[in-house]
Amino acid sequence: MNKFPQTARTTLKRLPYRGSHDRELINQILDEGFVCHVGFAVDGQPFVIPTGYARIGDKLFIHGSQASRMLRTLGKGIEVCLTVTLIDGLVLARSAFHHSMNYRSVVIFGRARMIDDSEEKSAALRALSEHMIPGRWDDVREPSERELQLTTVLSLPLNEASAKVRTGPPLDDEEDYGLPIWAGVIPLRMVADAPIGDTRLPTNVDAPRYALDYERPSSEA
Amino acid sequence: MNKFPQTARTTLKRLPYRGSHDRELINQILDEGFVCHVGFAVDGQPFVIPTGYARIGDKLFIHGSQASRMLRTLGKGIEVCLTVTLIDGLVLARSAFHHSMNYRSVVIFGRARMIDDSEEKSAALRALSEHMIPGRWDDVREPSERELQLTTVLSLPLNEASAKVRTGPPLDDEEDYGLPIWAGVIPLRMVADAPIGDTRLPTNVDAPRYALDYERPSSEA
Repeated sequence: MNKFPQTARTTLKRLPYRGSHDRELINQILDEGFVCHVGFAVDGQPFVIPTGYARIGDKLFIHGSQASRMLRTLGKGIEVCLTVTLIDGLVLARSAFHHSMNYRSVVIFGRARMIDDSEEKSAALRALSEHMIPGRWDDVREPSERELQLTTVLSLPLNEASAKVRTGPPLDDEEDYGLPIWAGVIPLRMVADAPIGDTRLPTNVDAPRYALDYERPSSEA
Repeated sequence: MNKFPQTARTTLKRLPYRGSHDRELINQILDEGFVCHVGFAVDGQPFVIPTGYARIGDKLFIHGSQASRMLRTLGKGIEVCLTVTLIDGLVLARSAFHHSMNYRSVVIFGRARMIDDSEEKSAALRALSEHMIPGRWDDVREPSERELQLTTVLSLPLNEASAKVRTGPPLDDEEDYGLPIWAGVIPLRMVADAPIGDTRLPTNVDAPRYALDYERPSSEA
């Protein structure tokens, strides 16, 4: 299935041409980003918390300390909204009104489930690490039994998701195109600087390629 | 007052040393970022939507179309949680367990109010523009009466806010420091590439300095 079903809460009411339920697009955005904002409500009080995530197939995983209030609350199976946003540029129009941003975002609705199975948990932790720093997992000391116990992993099914994308130049009112005002796009992207080795490293341990050449995969149109 | 009051919902239960209610720190983070994630709940269903924002003194402003469902819903004065997150780096520890991110985030709780007064609205729109692209406002065609009417601006009081910050190297278990595994930080930051002029620009209109030299203010420790 290449499209997510369109539901009441994933249907865009405004500017529907910017919306999409295309699975490939949604996966690309999720795979390029690595920080999401998780929203949930307790007695009507909303909370929005940033955290890392990873995707395996049609599931998204988040993790953290067993003591995390957020994870314990979400683990009860309450409604969650998870949003990933990539900022691609600032859109400078001739009029203040038509200024905008180029961005790609995904919103996922659903209920999370706590992962108990230790094999699934290990696979999720590996995915979380590899999603953030591809190649890292094979180099590190893997989690001990106790560390696994101290870590909570939740999975959120990718059943109900939508993307919203803006690309391209400003769209001005026709009568404004003649104005002598610069208009265009300032592209933005996230870059990595040279890695900073820990001061307690042994002298013979060099920074690995994945740290020296770190960059996020880019699928921007 | 240099500190925000510590309330039940802004008190960190875990790793409290990473939390802060310091007003200067919170303002710095808010002034460096320009995209927030706005969370609210309708009948227990959470929504998290990315949008631009600006700060004037102890108020935060967001804006959008009069037709925006989110703005209309928030304008009724329901509880909102607004989160701003800056990602500063990936923290590579010797153990998988101690991997982390360096980041600075602010979470604000409160109720938004719709701005009716046209002077306050204009000031907010100017702040939203100048926060994103300092220097831009004086160059553009300002909003017409009709455009102002089509734009909804909400203000959120900065009364109840907290920051959370992680900086510095990985913190490994003492017995892991001897392992021959590279550890350190991969710094991340957002950069602007050369501006892309609109294809319909007159030939004699050059890109302004604020587009050529665009960068976010940085207050990273």
